[in-house]
Amino acid sequence: MKVYLAGPDVFLPEHGAAIAAEKKRICALHGLEGVFPTDPRHDPAADAAAEAWYGIYLRNEAHLRACDALIANLTPFRGPSADAGTVYELGFMRALGRPVMGYSNAGRDFAQRTLAFLGNHARRDAAGRWTDGEGMSLEEFGLVDNLMVDGGIRAAGGRLPVREVTGEARWTDLAAFEACVAGLARLKG
Amino acid sequence: MKVYLAGPDVFLPEHGAAIAAEKKRICALHGLEGVFPTDPRHDPAADAAAEAWYGIYLRNEAHLRACDALIANLTPFRGPSADAGTVYELGFMRALGRPVMGYSNAGRDFAQRTLAFLGNHARRDAAGRWTDGEGMSLEEFGLVDNLMVDGGIRAAGGRLPVREVTGEARWTDLAAFEACVAGLARLKG
Repeated sequence: MKVYLAGPDVFLPEHGAAIAAEKKRICALHGLEGVFPTDPRHDPAADAAAEAWYGIYLRNEAHLRACDALIANLTPFRGPSADAGTVYELGFMRALGRPVMGYSNAGRDFAQRTLAFLGNHARRDAAGRWTDGEGMSLEEFGLVDNLMVDGGIRAAGGRLPVREVTGEARWTDLAAFEACVAGLARLKG
Repeated sequence: MKVYLAGPDVFLPEHGAAIAAEKKRICALHGLEGVFPTDPRHDPAADAAAEAWYGIYLRNEAHLRACDALIANLTPFRGPSADAGTVYELGFMRALGRPVMGYSNAGRDFAQRTLAFLGNHARRDAAGRWTDGEGMSLEEFGLVDNLMVDGGIRAAGGRLPVREVTGEARWTDLAAFEACVAGLARLKG
Protein backbone atom coordinates (compact mmCIF):
# COMPACT_ATOMS: atom_id res chain seq x y z
CA MET A 1 0.00 0.00 0.00
CA LYS A 2 1.48 3.32 -1.14
CA VAL A 3 0.51 6.25 1.06
CA TYR A 4 0.65 9.88 -0.13
CA LEU A 5 2.02 12.03 2.71
CA ALA A 6 0.13 15.32 2.31
CA GLY A 7 0.92 18.34 4.44
CA PRO A 8 2.63 21.70 4.80
CA ASP A 9 5.70 19.64 5.74
CA VAL A 10 7.00 20.53 2.25
CA PHE A 11 7.48 24.11 3.50
CA LEU A 12 9.87 23.05 6.26
CA PRO A 13 13.60 23.77 5.66
CA GLU A 14 15.15 21.68 2.85
CA HIS A 15 11.61 21.03 1.56
CA GLY A 16 10.88 18.88 4.60
CA ALA A 17 13.51 16.23 3.81
CA ALA A 18 13.96 15.28 7.49
CA ILE A 19 10.26 14.84 8.23
CA ALA A 20 9.79 13.00 4.93
CA ALA A 21 12.44 10.46 5.96
CA GLU A 22 10.90 10.01 9.41
CA LYS A 23 7.35 9.58 8.03
CA LYS A 24 8.58 7.00 5.52
CA ARG A 25 10.39 5.15 8.30
CA ILE A 26 7.17 4.97 10.34
CA CYS A 27 5.22 3.77 7.30
CA ALA A 28 7.78 1.04 6.66
CA LEU A 29 7.54 -0.11 10.30
CA HIS A 30 3.85 -0.76 9.61
CA GLY A 31 4.42 -2.43 6.25
CA LEU A 32 3.43 0.58 4.14
CA GLU A 33 5.31 2.71 1.62
CA GLY A 34 5.23 6.46 2.18
CA VAL A 35 5.33 8.77 -0.84
CA PHE A 36 6.33 12.39 -0.22
CA PRO A 37 5.17 15.11 -2.64
CA THR A 38 8.75 16.09 -3.51
CA ASP A 39 9.81 12.51 -4.31
CA PRO A 40 11.22 12.29 -7.84
CA ARG A 41 8.86 10.86 -10.42
CA HIS A 42 9.17 10.50 -14.12
CA ASP A 43 6.10 12.09 -15.67
CA PRO A 44 6.23 13.25 -19.29
CA ALA A 45 3.76 16.12 -18.81
CA ALA A 46 5.48 17.32 -15.63
CA ASP A 47 8.91 17.05 -17.23
CA ALA A 48 7.66 19.13 -20.18
CA ALA A 49 6.01 21.87 -18.08
CA ALA A 50 7.36 25.29 -19.01
CA GLU A 51 6.83 26.68 -15.51
CA ALA A 52 8.37 25.10 -12.40
CA TRP A 53 5.21 25.45 -10.30
CA TYR A 54 3.07 23.66 -12.88
CA GLY A 55 5.58 20.84 -13.11
CA ILE A 56 5.27 20.45 -9.34
CA TYR A 57 1.48 20.35 -9.62
CA LEU A 58 1.49 17.71 -12.35
CA ARG A 59 4.01 15.56 -10.47
CA ASN A 60 1.95 15.78 -7.27
CA GLU A 61 -1.18 14.80 -9.17
CA ALA A 62 0.65 11.83 -10.72
CA HIS A 63 1.86 10.78 -7.24
CA LEU A 64 -1.72 11.02 -5.93
CA ARG A 65 -3.17 8.90 -8.71
CA ALA A 66 -0.43 6.29 -8.15
CA CYS A 67 -1.04 6.03 -4.38
CA ASP A 68 -3.55 3.80 -2.62
CA ALA A 69 -4.27 6.03 0.35
CA LEU A 70 -3.47 9.43 1.86
CA ILE A 71 -2.56 10.81 5.28
CA ALA A 72 -3.00 14.59 5.61
CA ASN A 73 -1.23 16.78 8.14
CA LEU A 74 -4.16 19.07 9.01
CA THR A 75 -2.38 21.09 11.69
CA PRO A 76 -3.62 24.66 11.08
CA PHE A 77 -1.34 26.59 8.75
CA ARG A 78 -1.32 30.40 8.55
CA GLY A 79 -4.95 30.81 9.59
CA PRO A 80 -7.70 28.74 11.24
CA SER A 81 -7.69 26.00 8.58
CA ALA A 82 -5.22 23.46 7.25
CA ASP A 83 -2.87 24.21 4.34
CA ALA A 84 -4.86 24.70 1.11
CA GLY A 85 -2.75 22.32 -0.96
CA THR A 86 -3.23 19.59 1.63
CA VAL A 87 -7.00 20.07 1.68
CA TYR A 88 -7.10 19.96 -2.14
CA GLU A 89 -5.26 16.63 -2.08
CA LEU A 90 -7.58 15.24 0.60
CA GLY A 91 -10.64 16.02 -1.55
CA PHE A 92 -8.88 14.60 -4.59
CA MET A 93 -8.22 11.22 -2.98
CA ARG A 94 -11.66 11.02 -1.41
CA ALA A 95 -13.21 11.52 -4.85
CA LEU A 96 -11.17 8.56 -6.11
CA GLY A 97 -12.71 6.45 -3.33
CA ARG A 98 -9.40 5.68 -1.63
CA PRO A 99 -8.83 5.65 2.14
CA VAL A 100 -7.95 9.06 3.57
CA MET A 101 -6.84 9.86 7.10
CA GLY A 102 -5.79 13.11 8.73
CA TYR A 103 -4.24 14.35 11.94
CA SER A 104 -3.79 17.64 13.69
CA ASN A 105 -1.36 18.74 16.37
CA ALA A 106 -3.66 21.59 17.48
CA GLY A 107 -6.03 20.81 20.32
CA ARG A 108 -8.57 23.62 19.92
CA ASP A 109 -11.48 22.98 17.58
CA PHE A 110 -12.19 24.90 14.37
CA ALA A 111 -14.70 27.33 15.91
CA GLN A 112 -12.32 28.17 18.77
CA ARG A 113 -9.46 28.80 16.35
CA THR A 114 -11.65 30.91 14.08
CA LEU A 115 -12.82 33.02 17.03
CA ALA A 116 -9.19 33.52 18.10
CA PHE A 117 -8.32 34.55 14.54
CA LEU A 118 -11.20 37.05 14.37
CA GLY A 119 -10.40 38.57 17.77
CA ASN A 120 -12.65 41.51 18.52
CA HIS A 121 -14.18 41.37 15.03
CA ALA A 122 -16.29 38.40 16.15
CA ARG A 123 -19.86 39.16 17.17
CA ARG A 124 -23.09 37.34 17.91
CA ASP A 125 -26.12 37.70 15.65
CA ALA A 126 -29.72 38.11 16.84
CA ALA A 127 -30.04 34.34 17.25
CA GLY A 128 -26.87 34.19 19.38
CA ARG A 129 -24.70 32.56 16.72
CA TRP A 130 -21.18 33.76 16.05
CA THR A 131 -20.40 35.74 12.90
CA ASP A 132 -17.33 37.61 11.71
CA GLY A 133 -17.16 41.37 11.27
CA GLU A 134 -18.87 41.10 7.87
CA GLY A 135 -21.80 39.05 9.17
CA MET A 136 -20.52 35.76 7.74
CA SER A 137 -21.22 32.78 9.95
CA LEU A 138 -18.87 30.33 11.65
CA GLU A 139 -19.15 26.57 11.70
CA GLU A 140 -19.79 25.66 15.34
CA PHE A 141 -19.83 21.88 15.16
CA GLY A 142 -16.86 21.08 17.39
CA LEU A 143 -14.91 19.74 14.40
CA VAL A 144 -11.22 19.73 13.54
CA ASP A 145 -11.69 21.93 10.44
CA ASN A 146 -14.33 22.87 7.86
CA LEU A 147 -16.99 20.14 7.78
CA MET A 148 -15.90 19.04 4.31
CA VAL A 149 -12.53 18.04 5.77
CA ASP A 150 -13.90 16.10 8.75
CA GLY A 151 -16.73 14.69 6.63
CA GLY A 152 -14.50 13.41 3.85
CA ILE A 153 -12.38 11.49 6.33
CA ARG A 154 -15.41 10.04 8.07
CA ALA A 155 -17.05 9.06 4.77
CA ALA A 156 -13.84 7.28 3.76
CA GLY A 157 -13.79 5.33 7.04
CA GLY A 158 -10.65 7.19 8.11
CA ARG A 159 -9.25 8.35 11.41
CA LEU A 160 -8.71 11.96 12.45
CA PRO A 161 -6.62 11.97 15.64
CA VAL A 162 -5.87 15.27 17.36
CA ARG A 163 -3.07 16.01 19.81
CA GLU A 164 -2.22 19.27 21.49
CA VAL A 165 1.44 19.95 20.68
CA THR A 166 2.63 23.46 21.43
CA GLY A 167 5.19 25.58 19.65
CA GLU A 168 7.29 24.53 16.68
CA ALA A 169 7.20 20.89 17.82
CA ARG A 170 3.72 20.73 16.27
CA TRP A 171 5.47 20.43 12.88
CA THR A 172 7.63 17.49 13.92
CA ASP A 173 5.66 15.48 16.51
CA LEU A 174 4.46 12.34 14.70
CA ALA A 175 2.44 10.51 17.37
CA ALA A 176 -0.89 11.41 15.75
CA PHE A 177 0.58 10.67 12.32
CA GLU A 178 1.59 7.21 13.49
CA ALA A 179 -1.98 6.56 14.71
CA CYS A 180 -3.10 7.18 11.12
CA VAL A 181 -0.44 4.84 9.74
CA ALA A 182 -1.56 2.13 12.17
CA GLY A 183 -5.15 2.66 11.03
CA LEU A 184 -4.19 2.21 7.37
CA ALA A 185 -2.13 -0.87 8.17
CA ARG A 186 -5.18 -2.36 9.87
CA LEU A 187 -7.37 -1.56 6.81
CA LYS A 188 -4.80 -3.29 4.63
CA GLY A 189 -4.45 -6.33 6.91
CA MET B 1 -24.62 21.10 -17.80
CA LYS B 2 -25.05 21.23 -14.01
CA VAL B 3 -22.50 23.44 -12.27
CA TYR B 4 -21.65 23.12 -8.57
CA LEU B 5 -21.31 26.61 -7.09
CA ALA B 6 -18.55 26.21 -4.48
CA GLY B 7 -17.56 29.02 -2.15
CA PRO B 8 -17.77 30.59 1.28
CA ASP B 9 -20.99 32.16 -0.02
CA VAL B 10 -22.79 29.64 2.19
CA PHE B 11 -21.56 31.62 5.22
CA LEU B 12 -23.31 34.82 4.09
CA PRO B 13 -26.53 35.75 5.94
CA GLU B 14 -29.45 33.35 5.32
CA HIS B 15 -26.89 30.77 4.14
CA GLY B 16 -26.19 32.85 1.05
CA ALA B 17 -29.70 32.59 -0.40
CA ALA B 18 -29.43 35.91 -2.26
CA ILE B 19 -26.08 35.17 -3.90
CA ALA B 20 -27.26 31.64 -4.71
CA ALA B 21 -30.24 33.04 -6.61
CA GLU B 22 -28.08 35.54 -8.49
CA LYS B 23 -25.47 32.92 -9.44
CA LYS B 24 -28.19 30.58 -10.70
CA ARG B 25 -29.70 33.41 -12.74
CA ILE B 26 -26.33 34.07 -14.40
CA CYS B 27 -25.86 30.36 -15.10
CA ALA B 28 -29.32 30.17 -16.70
CA LEU B 29 -28.51 33.18 -18.92
CA HIS B 30 -25.66 31.11 -20.32
CA GLY B 31 -27.70 27.92 -20.67
CA LEU B 32 -26.30 26.22 -17.56
CA GLU B 33 -27.91 25.03 -14.34
CA GLY B 34 -26.33 26.23 -11.11
CA VAL B 35 -26.43 23.94 -8.05
CA PHE B 36 -25.82 25.57 -4.67
CA PRO B 37 -24.47 23.47 -1.77
CA THR B 38 -27.55 24.16 0.37
CA ASP B 39 -30.01 23.13 -2.36
CA PRO B 40 -32.30 20.39 -1.10
CA ARG B 41 -31.45 16.90 -2.28
CA HIS B 42 -32.88 13.56 -1.41
CA ASP B 43 -30.02 11.36 -0.35
CA PRO B 44 -30.70 8.31 1.84
CA ALA B 45 -27.34 8.41 3.63
CA ALA B 46 -27.55 12.16 4.25
CA ASP B 47 -31.15 11.88 5.45
CA ALA B 48 -30.11 9.16 7.88
CA ALA B 49 -27.05 11.00 9.29
CA ALA B 50 -27.28 11.29 13.07
CA GLU B 51 -25.34 14.56 13.13
CA ALA B 52 -26.40 17.65 11.17
CA TRP B 53 -22.89 18.49 9.98
CA TYR B 54 -22.34 15.02 8.54
CA GLY B 55 -25.67 15.18 6.73
CA ILE B 56 -24.49 18.43 5.14
CA TYR B 57 -21.23 16.77 4.09
CA LEU B 58 -22.94 13.79 2.51
CA ARG B 59 -25.44 15.99 0.68
CA ASN B 60 -22.66 18.21 -0.66
CA GLU B 61 -20.75 15.16 -1.85
CA ALA B 62 -23.87 13.82 -3.58
CA HIS B 63 -24.36 17.23 -5.26
CA LEU B 64 -20.73 17.19 -6.42
CA ARG B 65 -20.99 13.72 -7.92
CA ALA B 66 -24.22 14.71 -9.71
CA CYS B 67 -22.73 17.87 -11.25
CA ASP B 68 -20.81 18.14 -14.53
CA ALA B 69 -18.54 21.03 -13.57
CA LEU B 70 -17.59 23.34 -10.71
CA ILE B 71 -16.95 27.05 -10.24
CA ALA B 72 -15.11 27.93 -7.02
CA ASN B 73 -15.18 31.29 -5.28
CA LEU B 74 -11.51 31.47 -4.28
CA THR B 75 -11.62 34.95 -2.75
CA PRO B 76 -9.39 34.63 0.35
CA PHE B 77 -11.36 33.70 3.44
CA ARG B 78 -10.05 34.25 6.98
CA GLY B 79 -6.41 33.96 6.02
CA PRO B 80 -4.25 34.09 2.90
CA SER B 81 -5.99 31.14 1.21
CA ALA B 82 -9.46 30.34 -0.03
CA ASP B 83 -12.09 28.67 2.18
CA ALA B 84 -11.03 25.10 3.06
CA GLY B 85 -14.36 23.52 2.10
CA THR B 86 -14.20 25.17 -1.31
CA VAL B 87 -10.65 23.94 -1.94
CA TYR B 88 -11.67 20.40 -0.91
CA GLU B 89 -14.49 20.48 -3.45
CA LEU B 90 -12.18 21.82 -6.17
CA GLY B 91 -9.77 18.91 -5.67
CA PHE B 92 -12.70 16.50 -5.55
CA MET B 93 -14.06 17.56 -8.94
CA ARG B 94 -10.64 17.69 -10.55
CA ALA B 95 -10.04 14.09 -9.48
CA LEU B 96 -13.28 13.12 -11.24
CA GLY B 97 -11.89 14.69 -14.42
CA ARG B 98 -14.65 17.29 -14.72
CA PRO B 99 -14.11 20.93 -15.73
CA VAL B 100 -13.27 23.20 -12.81
CA MET B 101 -12.98 26.98 -12.84
CA GLY B 102 -12.31 29.49 -10.09
CA TYR B 103 -12.35 33.20 -9.49
CA SER B 104 -11.05 35.59 -6.89
CA ASN B 105 -12.07 39.12 -6.02
CA ALA B 106 -8.70 39.86 -4.40
CA GLY B 107 -6.08 41.43 -6.63
CA ARG B 108 -2.91 40.69 -4.64
CA ASP B 109 -1.20 37.37 -5.33
CA PHE B 110 -0.77 34.56 -2.81
CA ALA B 111 2.76 35.52 -1.75
CA GLN B 112 1.75 39.15 -1.20
CA ARG B 113 -1.23 38.10 0.90
CA THR B 114 0.85 35.65 2.91
CA LEU B 115 3.46 38.32 3.62
CA ALA B 116 0.72 40.71 4.76
CA PHE B 117 -0.68 37.97 7.02
CA LEU B 118 2.75 37.25 8.54
CA GLY B 119 3.53 40.91 9.12
CA ASN B 120 6.81 41.36 10.94
CA HIS B 121 7.16 37.61 11.47
CA ALA B 122 8.27 37.27 7.82
CA ARG B 123 12.00 37.07 7.23
CA ARG B 124 14.42 36.24 4.44
CA ASP B 125 16.62 33.13 4.61
CA ALA B 126 20.30 32.99 3.65
CA ALA B 127 19.34 32.53 -0.01
CA GLY B 128 17.05 35.59 0.08
CA ARG B 129 13.79 33.64 0.01
CA TRP B 130 10.91 34.54 2.28
CA THR B 131 10.06 32.33 5.25
CA ASP B 132 7.67 32.71 8.15
CA GLY B 133 8.76 33.10 11.78
CA GLU B 134 9.24 29.33 12.09
CA GLY B 135 11.47 29.06 9.01
CA MET B 136 8.74 27.58 6.80
CA SER B 137 8.90 28.77 3.21
CA LEU B 138 6.40 30.72 1.12
CA GLU B 139 5.27 29.93 -2.41
CA GLU B 140 6.53 32.84 -4.51
CA PHE B 141 5.15 31.93 -7.93
CA GLY B 142 2.82 34.89 -8.49
CA LEU B 143 -0.20 32.62 -8.27
CA VAL B 144 -3.74 33.15 -7.01
CA ASP B 145 -3.37 30.59 -4.19
CA ASN B 146 -1.41 27.45 -3.28
CA LEU B 147 -0.06 25.91 -6.49
CA MET B 148 -2.39 22.91 -6.14
CA VAL B 149 -5.34 25.28 -6.56
CA ASP B 150 -4.00 27.12 -9.60
CA GLY B 151 -2.57 23.90 -11.04
CA GLY B 152 -5.80 21.93 -10.74
CA ILE B 153 -7.68 24.58 -12.65
CA ARG B 154 -5.03 24.79 -15.34
CA ALA B 155 -4.84 21.00 -15.71
CA ALA B 156 -8.62 20.91 -16.14
CA GLY B 157 -8.46 23.55 -18.89
CA GLY B 158 -10.29 26.01 -16.65
CA ARG B 159 -10.20 29.76 -16.21
CA LEU B 160 -9.09 31.59 -13.07
CA PRO B 161 -10.05 35.26 -13.44
CA VAL B 162 -9.05 37.73 -10.74
CA ARG B 163 -10.59 41.12 -10.02
CA GLU B 164 -9.70 43.59 -7.32
CA VAL B 165 -12.94 44.30 -5.45
CA THR B 166 -12.52 46.10 -2.15
CA GLY B 167 -14.53 45.81 1.05
CA GLU B 168 -17.59 43.66 1.56
CA ALA B 169 -18.51 43.97 -2.14
CA ARG B 170 -15.91 41.26 -2.77
CA TRP B 171 -18.50 38.74 -1.53
CA THR B 172 -21.21 39.91 -3.93
CA ASP B 173 -19.47 41.17 -7.10
CA LEU B 174 -20.03 38.49 -9.74
CA ALA B 175 -18.17 39.84 -12.78
CA ALA B 176 -15.33 37.33 -12.40
CA PHE B 177 -17.85 34.60 -11.63
CA GLU B 178 -19.68 35.36 -14.87
CA ALA B 179 -16.41 35.05 -16.81
CA CYS B 180 -16.17 31.48 -15.47
CA VAL B 181 -19.76 30.73 -16.45
CA ALA B 182 -19.08 32.03 -19.97
CA GLY B 183 -16.01 29.79 -20.13
CA LEU B 184 -18.04 26.72 -19.17
CA ALA B 185 -20.77 27.59 -21.67
CA ARG B 186 -18.11 27.75 -24.36
CA LEU B 187 -16.72 24.32 -23.33
CA LYS B 188 -20.23 22.91 -23.53
CA GLY B 189 -21.01 24.53 -26.89
